[in-house]
Amino acid sequence: MHAPQVPESARIRFRCKARTRWSDEDNQNVLNNAVYMTLLEEGRHAYFERLGLLELNHFPFVLAQTNIRFVAPGRGGAEVEIEVVTTRLGNSSFEQSYRVREARGGRTWCEAEAVLVIYDARTGRSSPMSTAFKQAVAEFEGLG
Amino acid sequence: MHAPQVPESARIRFRCKARTRWSDEDNQNVLNNAVYMTLLEEGRHAYFERLGLLELNHFPFVLAQTNIRFVAPGRGGAEVEIEVVTTRLGNSSFEQSYRVREARGGRTWCEAEAVLVIYDARTGRSSPMSTAFKQAVAEFEGLG
Amino acid sequence: MHAPQVPESARIRFRCKARTRWSDEDNQNVLNNAVYMTLLEEGRHAYFERLGLLELNHFPFVLAQTNIRFVAPGRGGAEVEIEVVTTRLGNSSFEQSYRVREARGGRTWCEAEAVLVIYDARTGRSSPMSTAFKQAVAEFEGLG
Amino acid sequence: MHAPQVPESARIRFRCKARTRWSDEDNQNVLNNAVYMTLLEEGRHAYFERLGLLELNHFPFVLAQTNIRFVAPGRGGAEVEIEVVTTRLGNSSFEQSYRVREARGGRTWCEAEAVLVIYDARTGRSSPMSTAFKQAVAEFEGLG
Repeated sequence: MHAPQVPESARIRFRCKARTRWSDEDNQNVLNNAVYMTLLEEGRHAYFERLGLLELNHFPFVLAQTNIRFVAPGRGGAEVEIEVVTTRLGNSSFEQSYRVREARGGRTWCEAEAVLVIYDARTGRSSPMSTAFKQAVAEFEGLG
Repeated sequence: MHAPQVPESARIRFRCKARTRWSDEDNQNVLNNAVYMTLLEEGRHAYFERLGLLELNHFPFVLAQTNIRFVAPGRGGAEVEIEVVTTRLGNSSFEQSYRVREARGGRTWCEAEAVLVIYDARTGRSSPMSTAFKQAVAEFEGLG
Repeated sequence: MHAPQVPESARIRFRCKARTRWSDEDNQNVLNNAVYMTLLEEGRHAYFERLGLLELNHFPFVLAQTNIRFVAPGRGGAEVEIEVVTTRLGNSSFEQSYRVREARGGRTWCEAEAVLVIYDARTGRSSPMSTAFKQAVAEFEGLG
Repeated sequence: MHAPQVPESARIRFRCKARTRWSDEDNQNVLNNAVYMTLLEEGRHAYFERLGLLELNHFPFVLAQTNIRFVAPGRGGAEVEIEVVTTRLGNSSFEQSYRVREARGGRTWCEAEAVLVIYDARTGRSSPMSTAFKQAVAEFEGLG
């Protein structure tokens, strides 16, 4: 199984803060694996809010695939920094990479990559990426 | 990003039932992506409980990597069938594949593969796979 | 703080099964308190589905108050039985009581009471209880 | 059902910030009710961390009862302020009250009261409140 491809931190333009909760730890006293997925989602939410591409708090796309590598055990009640970068823009889909690290100390907890598909909630189907969406992301990321 | 490698259902020996909850749907009216991770964990829990390898409801391993492909939108309040298969047994790690399908109709919601690492909670480190663990899984799966 | 008023089990007409998940346990190795709220919601969902009063998987009411007494520590990976009873029907609100017990052994985990308010999602406001809703619940419960 | 007794904000000495997540909204597009329970827990965690009474991220007590009144619909992706006050200290239990309000605008989302019982994880039983615990809380709250 190949490791997720995640650019080094210095090359990632977007980062935001989030907090883990006490109840995010499971009975093994570490952050439950599903919570990482929630943290990636929080990162995506902040990223697209910053770019002005959320519609009434809804995402205009769905997650098609995620590949997560769990690097170190996380914990509840901690502040984390989430790095988000769009690495490819297609006609109806795009790819992103993520890194979650503990804010204090900077230790990486996980790295991930994802494929996301533009989705029209009215029709319930995938749809072409709008020019506005493509331009906003391409400009932010400096993608050709 | 490569798709997870998941054997066809007829070749998978373990399956169990689980239920999604009403609150598992997010504001897009579909099963939230993090819940799939929880369903894979439920499948793993049932698999290792069946094999008698859980210690006081704790897993003797941690998740090192998961690659999930979301095939169709899931929903809350539904019964699902989770298929679990161990595809490789190493000296201190192993690999599994999973498929989650809605029980009614049989539609596949997601497919996934994972790498898991044997872990000793007392030392907080990875550790060799015990002979008992290896034998129990190899026998169940018919692995060489 | 007064204890929730919950009729004895023999006088409650509706009960359903649900399952707790492995990840529902927190780092104190017991069912996290928020999960009880989710179990009460699962009970309500099954109750109103049985009565045919859900609209496209949405509740036609919101929770206004819940009073929960935690009687014994719950655990993950267990089957539970949830008892639900409507104890009062008003013009725009109603009251229910609940009991959650472990299926194996029958030990009570929690008892609760709740006030719920009829809600019109289109207007975002509380609204009068429809005659159909009132009749269906009154008939099921044998309420005058 | 009586409303929870919560002192007015000006008389509450402890408050902390927390954040709701995008996935905390359910399919009715409001904060799911179970999340309020998690927010109260976050408030308790911050309160006892401030007082130095957490032991390795574990609470030395369990929740025996909670009475929550949902005042206004909450939402995901919002910053909230959580007020926590201890209103009574007994020999093996104590009572607290809480208020959760949206940070922006200050609208109250819920008010709650709770009974908590000192618990010894080694014996699995309730136990007397230690003098250190009682003094720390009494001093902070100015309780006789």
